[in-house]
Amino acid sequence: MKVALLTIGSEILDGRVVDTNSAYLCALLTNLGITVTGISSCDDAIPDVHDLLSHLLKQAACVIVTGGLGPTSDDLTREAVASFIGEDIVLNPASLERLKGLYAVRQRTFDPSNAKQATFPSGAEIIPNPVGTAEGFRVSTSEGAYIICLPGVPRELRAMIDGTVLSMLKKEMVVRKSPIFEQRAARIFGLPESLIGSKVVELNLGEAIKVSYRASFPEVHLLIRGVNQPLDVALGRISAALGADHVYSSDLEIGMPETVVSLLTGSGQTIAVAESCTGGMLGELLTTVAGASECFLGGVIAYSNNLKRSLLNVSQESLTNHGAVSHKTALEMALGARLATQSSIAVSITGIAGPERASIAPAEILAPGVPVGPEKPVGSFFIGLSTPEGEKSYRFFFSSSRGLIRKFAAYKALDVVRRLLSQLPEVADDIK
Amino acid sequence: MKVALLTIGSEILDGRVVDTNSAYLCALLTNLGITVTGISSCDDAIPDVHDLLSHLLKQAACVIVTGGLGPTSDDLTREAVASFIGEDIVLNPASLERLKGLYAVRQRTFDPSNAKQATFPSGAEIIPNPVGTAEGFRVSTSEGAYIICLPGVPRELRAMIDGTVLSMLKKEMVVRKSPIFEQRAARIFGLPESLIGSKVVELNLGEAIKVSYRASFPEVHLLIRGVNQPLDVALGRISAALGADHVYSSDLEIGMPETVVSLLTGSGQTIAVAESCTGGMLGELLTTVAGASECFLGGVIAYSNNLKRSLLNVSQESLTNHGAVSHKTALEMALGARLATQSSIAVSITGIAGPERASIAPAEILAPGVPVGPEKPVGSFFIGLSTPEGEKSYRFFFSSSRGLIRKFAAYKALDVVRRLLSQLPEVADDIK
Repeated sequence: MKVALLTIGSEILDGRVVDTNSAYLCALLTNLGITVTGISSCDDAIPDVHDLLSHLLKQAACVIVTGGLGPTSDDLTREAVASFIGEDIVLNPASLERLKGLYAVRQRTFDPSNAKQATFPSGAEIIPNPVGTAEGFRVSTSEGAYIICLPGVPRELRAMIDGTVLSMLKKEMVVRKSPIFEQRAARIFGLPESLIGSKVVELNLGEAIKVSYRASFPEVHLLIRGVNQPLDVALGRISAALGADHVYSSDLEIGMPETVVSLLTGSGQTIAVAESCTGGMLGELLTTVAGASECFLGGVIAYSNNLKRSLLNVSQESLTNHGAVSHKTALEMALGARLATQSSIAVSITGIAGPERASIAPAEILAPGVPVGPEKPVGSFFIGLSTPEGEKSYRFFFSSSRGLIRKFAAYKALDVVRRLLSQLPEVADDIK
Repeated sequence: MKVALLTIGSEILDGRVVDTNSAYLCALLTNLGITVTGISSCDDAIPDVHDLLSHLLKQAACVIVTGGLGPTSDDLTREAVASFIGEDIVLNPASLERLKGLYAVRQRTFDPSNAKQATFPSGAEIIPNPVGTAEGFRVSTSEGAYIICLPGVPRELRAMIDGTVLSMLKKEMVVRKSPIFEQRAARIFGLPESLIGSKVVELNLGEAIKVSYRASFPEVHLLIRGVNQPLDVALGRISAALGADHVYSSDLEIGMPETVVSLLTGSGQTIAVAESCTGGMLGELLTTVAGASECFLGGVIAYSNNLKRSLLNVSQESLTNHGAVSHKTALEMALGARLATQSSIAVSITGIAGPERASIAPAEILAPGVPVGPEKPVGSFFIGLSTPEGEKSYRFFFSSSRGLIRKFAAYKALDVVRRLLSQLPEVADDIK
């Protein structure tokens, strides 16, 4: 089945908002097995809408229109679609009652002009809006294609897709004997997209199983789709080929922080952090998870060397002879955080996020290809890990911008903890 | 002048990437005074591209095409545009030399098929790409409209806009006697968009000065545009009407963290943080700023009550009788962080970000309209401030999701510090 999208509204054309609805809808439709033939955006102008509907319906059996369903005079989607299919606009009494009720509950005055939101092209099937005032609708064209109109507010759009439109599309796919895809997903950390791609190609999963990739820094998300295909077997083979230690989640909603918090909570362990270059990002990531307080105690942001000494008990000798960005300091930071917080596990990050280069003595040999010199280059960082069994540290190098180096370092630290708790191979220290 | 956008590529239509280029271009063009008449996206298919170019050129004098300029066989933008204007594709020897040079520098083998990226419609003006292999081009149609083709990679697109396309458009605007807008901006924190809007309307700045709003949680960004208008006067009047304490930056690149770091560095003061519900976000925000190490020492993430006691010296009496989320605890956290780090200023955050409700004794009266009960509702938070002059605390309530409550709280803390350092009125404690 083929579907096209039409986005109506001046806020898209003047750049005030990024059209995230279209990407959301495209991913959703693609994953079902629907081909999106095109996306167009225009202002609230009837001739424009007519022109684009004609264009889009040349290829697609259905156009999903978003936006222009508000109560003001420049919201013209109802009128444009009604005149396109040659129908009048009629008031729906049940929708009017619902609308008045919503205004009453929200203690807002119902101006008669708001009744516009209870009008639809004659013969339209109404699509309920469980979270807002703008109901949507579906109409058919004389050629057997159809047009679905939804509000542009992302929260409302998504609620209506989940509540009605998805099953409407699936029914239509059955009628048209269009195959509906099932889907499996994998979140991958620690492997480049190109390597993932070539390993998956080597598996020869067959034409009927489609694998697609989405880079979501610092991860790659993989979607495996097919119709009546052994998708679990395919996911298992991909996981085995890439290494179960890299393929860490098969649920797109469960990311690295959720995984680590769940492993800690499940094993009754607690964690603390000691952060230098990430400045609190690791703690922030862990506490995005509701219920993190069951395992996350807190920690120390030791951005200055003085705080590394006073709050984490890092020795002056380590700072002077090895540098603030070194194995020795990372180890002592992690140990210091564990002792100060009485946590089961502590993890530390110290690195150089740039843009300026920090000068640290003595010189060390860096990654192959990185010139040896008196400095550690921007992008060098160390992760320390402390448990009652002892301390470990890892060295990494990631050449990028300040923001991405910091994010990558925070995820590496989460990954070190995840591997420890899952008894997986230790993360490879990428600089020997 | 009117311009339309055409985005070519399957990665948009299958939802793998969000089309941020279009929003970027729309904002840039709108700010110059150019009207964007439409945006369309299609796959790399010549008939589709022709159809959409015809449609878009009905209204626009120029179409900016992005994507489809890669070296592979499915990159068809060159061919599609050439056949649309009735020209052949020709090889540009200078571009070929440049391309071979780039491959050599990057130590990649130059396959003859890559020469495709040195081909253009006959008579095209070439648009240099300072950061990648895909050069762009401009061609004219027989009706005097023109088509600008650029690569879809955002970094390359932006470099080419800055390097060539912007001045190309401005020249064209001069030729067409189309007015070019100048622009001023303001970043606003602490006022709702609706209030900002009505205050600006009251100022009667005149039809010739256009003001637009962009919500960028938790801030509102305001753009003031006009042709030969006293924009600085308008910005001054808006700033006075909204309060210079709310309009905190007139540079869109300088946000709250940059402002606070610059105030601290400028006055030679240092800062430390003590974070509970934000889990490190405040430190993370401050350290997004390169050079934050001049003023940011670090601090303590005291997510658990034990750490509030052991690392920040919060008294058991405060935790038991006032609760972890209270004025008393916020004050003691800030004081504890200042003493532990020897900073000039320390700021603390403690609150309930949800989703679960935390039970804290004793009951306190909350904001008007919030039911009094044995609990503080999700969205309640306290900011503590400690300086050598003493401690202060503020109470706020923000009803939203966990993620937004945390972000709002971190920004409120930055705002408290900003007001202190700028000798502005203290932030209003929104719950008495």
